[in-house]
Amino acid sequence: MVVVMYPQAKEEQVAEVDSRLTAMGFRAQVIYGAKRTVVAAVGDRRAIESLGLEALPGVEKVVPIMKPFKLASREVSEENTVIKVRGVTIGADQVAVIAGPCAVESREQLMKAAQAARRAGARFLRGGAFKPRTSPYSFQGMEEEGLKLLAEVSEQTGLVTVSEVIDEDSLERATAYIDILQIGTRNMQNFRLLKAAGQSNKPILLKRGLSATIEEWLMAAEYIMSEGNQSVILCERGIRTFETYTRNTLDLSAIPLVKSLSHLPVVVDPSHATGKRELVLPMTLAAVAAGADGLLVEMHPNPAKALCDGPQSLNPEQFLQLMESARPVAQAIGKTL
Amino acid sequence: MVVVMYPQAKEEQVAEVDSRLTAMGFRAQVIYGAKRTVVAAVGDRRAIESLGLEALPGVEKVVPIMKPFKLASREVSEENTVIKVRGVTIGADQVAVIAGPCAVESREQLMKAAQAARRAGARFLRGGAFKPRTSPYSFQGMEEEGLKLLAEVSEQTGLVTVSEVIDEDSLERATAYIDILQIGTRNMQNFRLLKAAGQSNKPILLKRGLSATIEEWLMAAEYIMSEGNQSVILCERGIRTFETYTRNTLDLSAIPLVKSLSHLPVVVDPSHATGKRELVLPMTLAAVAAGADGLLVEMHPNPAKALCDGPQSLNPEQFLQLMESARPVAQAIGKTL
Amino acid sequence: MVVVMYPQAKEEQVAEVDSRLTAMGFRAQVIYGAKRTVVAAVGDRRAIESLGLEALPGVEKVVPIMKPFKLASREVSEENTVIKVRGVTIGADQVAVIAGPCAVESREQLMKAAQAARRAGARFLRGGAFKPRTSPYSFQGMEEEGLKLLAEVSEQTGLVTVSEVIDEDSLERATAYIDILQIGTRNMQNFRLLKAAGQSNKPILLKRGLSATIEEWLMAAEYIMSEGNQSVILCERGIRTFETYTRNTLDLSAIPLVKSLSHLPVVVDPSHATGKRELVLPMTLAAVAAGADGLLVEMHPNPAKALCDGPQSLNPEQFLQLMESARPVAQAIGKTL
Amino acid sequence: MVVVMYPQAKEEQVAEVDSRLTAMGFRAQVIYGAKRTVVAAVGDRRAIESLGLEALPGVEKVVPIMKPFKLASREVSEENTVIKVRGVTIGADQVAVIAGPCAVESREQLMKAAQAARRAGARFLRGGAFKPRTSPYSFQGMEEEGLKLLAEVSEQTGLVTVSEVIDEDSLERATAYIDILQIGTRNMQNFRLLKAAGQSNKPILLKRGLSATIEEWLMAAEYIMSEGNQSVILCERGIRTFETYTRNTLDLSAIPLVKSLSHLPVVVDPSHATGKRELVLPMTLAAVAAGADGLLVEMHPNPAKALCDGPQSLNPEQFLQLMESARPVAQAIGKTL
Repeated sequence: MVVVMYPQAKEEQVAEVDSRLTAMGFRAQVIYGAKRTVVAAVGDRRAIESLGLEALPGVEKVVPIMKPFKLASREVSEENTVIKVRGVTIGADQVAVIAGPCAVESREQLMKAAQAARRAGARFLRGGAFKPRTSPYSFQGMEEEGLKLLAEVSEQTGLVTVSEVIDEDSLERATAYIDILQIGTRNMQNFRLLKAAGQSNKPILLKRGLSATIEEWLMAAEYIMSEGNQSVILCERGIRTFETYTRNTLDLSAIPLVKSLSHLPVVVDPSHATGKRELVLPMTLAAVAAGADGLLVEMHPNPAKALCDGPQSLNPEQFLQLMESARPVAQAIGKTL
Repeated sequence: MVVVMYPQAKEEQVAEVDSRLTAMGFRAQVIYGAKRTVVAAVGDRRAIESLGLEALPGVEKVVPIMKPFKLASREVSEENTVIKVRGVTIGADQVAVIAGPCAVESREQLMKAAQAARRAGARFLRGGAFKPRTSPYSFQGMEEEGLKLLAEVSEQTGLVTVSEVIDEDSLERATAYIDILQIGTRNMQNFRLLKAAGQSNKPILLKRGLSATIEEWLMAAEYIMSEGNQSVILCERGIRTFETYTRNTLDLSAIPLVKSLSHLPVVVDPSHATGKRELVLPMTLAAVAAGADGLLVEMHPNPAKALCDGPQSLNPEQFLQLMESARPVAQAIGKTL
Repeated sequence: MVVVMYPQAKEEQVAEVDSRLTAMGFRAQVIYGAKRTVVAAVGDRRAIESLGLEALPGVEKVVPIMKPFKLASREVSEENTVIKVRGVTIGADQVAVIAGPCAVESREQLMKAAQAARRAGARFLRGGAFKPRTSPYSFQGMEEEGLKLLAEVSEQTGLVTVSEVIDEDSLERATAYIDILQIGTRNMQNFRLLKAAGQSNKPILLKRGLSATIEEWLMAAEYIMSEGNQSVILCERGIRTFETYTRNTLDLSAIPLVKSLSHLPVVVDPSHATGKRELVLPMTLAAVAAGADGLLVEMHPNPAKALCDGPQSLNPEQFLQLMESARPVAQAIGKTL
Repeated sequence: MVVVMYPQAKEEQVAEVDSRLTAMGFRAQVIYGAKRTVVAAVGDRRAIESLGLEALPGVEKVVPIMKPFKLASREVSEENTVIKVRGVTIGADQVAVIAGPCAVESREQLMKAAQAARRAGARFLRGGAFKPRTSPYSFQGMEEEGLKLLAEVSEQTGLVTVSEVIDEDSLERATAYIDILQIGTRNMQNFRLLKAAGQSNKPILLKRGLSATIEEWLMAAEYIMSEGNQSVILCERGIRTFETYTRNTLDLSAIPLVKSLSHLPVVVDPSHATGKRELVLPMTLAAVAAGADGLLVEMHPNPAKALCDGPQSLNPEQFLQLMESARPVAQAIGKTL
């Protein structure tokens, strides 16, 4: 960390910064330039931040140098984390494909989606039972009944299930039925929920917040991990920008970037990222080529009748085609799908 | 709403859109242009959106025309909503000033802050007991003990209290001690919390999400109001942009914009918006001039020792000066402060 | 286009909108809803916009429905535009690879870069002679001498050259030496330059502006095309967002999106987009998989001594590896590279 | 500047960074932490950046500490720059009001606008003769004829004129007729134009780029100043964000921020920033309260017939009301208007 003093800072103000750092056990060095003085210190960022140096007289700004995350950091583990659920892995050489409808609507709808997923080669089934919706007047999900249908269909098809939780109550209920719990983009900084997820024994699929930096995203993972749950799967799903032709802007550079900063697996949701069915295929191929550990794809037996996100859902045929197109791209970079 | 058909859309595809709209009771009109056909309909946006028209063959896009909020809308009430708490109003001609520390740290700290607030003329005291922090390793608040201190100090000083709630549990506990419950920027779309707030009998101060559009913000208010609680105070606190010199970008145009779209009062938090103490005064004056119904200002008896947000906190003297500078601006636009 | 009237709009205000549209030859239809009235018209957007309806009393807003671009539009041509320069194509089945240094620094540097490019299989050489730099104190390019070196090296290696122009003067001078003229991100809305480029007989590589929407980008192409030059190559190079770990955010969804909206070829610059050498390879693979018609890659014989953009430049060996990695991805989607 | 080494960086890589810095005459200090080593140096940022340290092996990143601007910097002058044109000042205690139409359309239109401006107390007249338009099919301005009209009307009314230049040619022509030359938002990084403006003897009103950071904006001013012209007026006009209810997001915190970083005057354009007539008044009051040195307001004798930007233009009556409302706010902060 570097403390930049104002040009007119007094000698005793510099000394105060220096002594606060030294008192806490940091190696601080005062560096005098022609016009400015800075005080540099290397050490635990959290500890330094707690010193409140930015509020001291004479201090212009404090520039952090080190990353604030620890457990999620690549420095903790050179090896990639591989998460194994009911015999299927995420984070190894096979690209994990999670497919299914935005919302569980009925047994028939879910079973059709699951069969289409399995037929095309996917190993994971997604389906929302608790739906966070922008409008209070929109369909809010089947709740526990939806969870039961997911468990039932999973048993019949062997697919590993993924479903979103939105508070401590839904997390507790989902734990009884679901294999992987998803925390959605709007809850990425719902710290209570993150802590509860950290005490769960289920893997957590953590979506990137709508306008979360990579650092904030990894800090959200850190929340979960600091409570004991190391099985976190990160999911890039597009960020908010000024562009309006797409629902969000898919940030594929997040894949290699996160993989250099962290040992956690990263999957990509091209459906929510783009909001347009015709962009799902090319963005899937791009995600695979960029090194994504998995995909989260919205697929509905009948998109035109979907209770949510119809415009971005593939039908079973389109999904089959997507899988067939993605396989050679995976092979081209030495993976399977 | 306008359904734009693809240039190559077939006649029966247009007819299908038309008949779906008509079947639901909308007046639809098909308009034929030289190259394109569009179907226009006026009516309840939520009902139209539930038709899933965007997923029909031949449809290029659906352009919404009407606003999605109802109860929060200006169309519901030409008169401004005035919220009255323990004899003090928000939304009338007096600019409401809410001041206090980011976090309640001790009885002494809080009492000093409260006295400084009252001395300068503020009628509201803020202080965080439950702190949503980006890092799991940062100070998370005094929780219930902090609430008790707020109630105690409020009783002694007569100040109306404002404190943040972060889940259903903290909401329930705060209800026993606090006058106005705050929902923070990271929870603006925590829909469970919004619903719980809607069932509360306390006024809710709803901060704008970090990257929430005006429309999403008003829809979050709508969530609260649709559960029965009409006492919502909106709080602009800066949005996330590419600029890094400030913590966020304060969007003051949100004040007159929201006041034209909605009857709810709007207050401004210049402290979190800018993240810099020296910008708090000019942004306070600007907020008052732009017509803000209130201010939320961080003030700490000793900012250099604050457990959070020290760099943006005013000390009591600076706060006094802020109040004295803001008063003539309020008067210049026909208000008091 | 749809003209939305205020709820309290008077009948004669609606009539005025209707009659203005009708007088200009549009088919306007007035649609009466329960609370609102709208007037819908289909027709040339530019003509309708020139009517100034938004400023009429009673009008709340005007919502455009159609796209504003014409010549660049996919509706003009179902076939993709293929640009052929000295026997090499951009826009057909072979991914065009443009490689070379940010700035031409010397004959030796450029020749080494060119040889490395050719050895790896690239057919195009880039090199800046006129450099738009954020700081007036940074190296501004070799100007005409740089152009001459590009022409000389092109003659010896057979590589097709690409170089940036920054005003009418540099455009005129570059025309004598260079095969493809680049208009940079900061000049995407330098309309004088666009018009001059439209009168040139050279293909134009048009970079997307730092914060340009897809629509504005295509309108910039429209400027060039409306002056007669139909040979426009669009280049996605990252947009400005709140994320700071990367220089910009590469928007790969722009590739399929632009290809659905326009017939023009789209290439991708992963070097400027990310600003980090280690992200160039994965983003190259992703761009190819997403369907990019070409790549613009910074490569320097000795990046640590580059006069600009060293941190994002590959060295010749890394570039060779990139080409070898990208080839199977191109093949996986039915292309060559 | 701080050079952060990778955790696994070798001793000789650290030494190489150190010796490069020392060789260039910087005082470098190597700081060893528990896990990381950093090398800190204080000195001229431009000189350090030219060393290409970021591209050296073992270097993770280079974190700049000092600001890159010099002549525009507050460190050059504690006193505010006051610009005086034909007896009227910008940057002193009187808020400078610049009013007039988006585009000069005719002698009659301009004269009416000028008379309305003068009547209301404005001392400056704006009017575009060269219009940079997003669409090649929109009205592009009256060019030299517009300049002549501005000069003529200025002579008759005594108003100081402001008009936009878009390239070297229009700059040269405008110099003969106009008092203050404006460089628009799309040309903020048109470095050729900035240099030409730097060689002009006219004050330059430099608009902030659509997505320019404060730092880039001040660097654009630095371009002009480094060529010799110290009379630069900065103009905040809204930045691009995700919000769509307003045309741009007016960043009023830029006023006090720029005034702390620089000695140059800052004016605000509430018309382009918001794009909505009804937001111009409140944003004007806010800008004045925040300490703006001036205002740039679009006013047209008949907005419904304006050839551009009608929806955001005030009519003469509304402008008069704006001036009357702004005066007491200016007085409240110790200024006149």
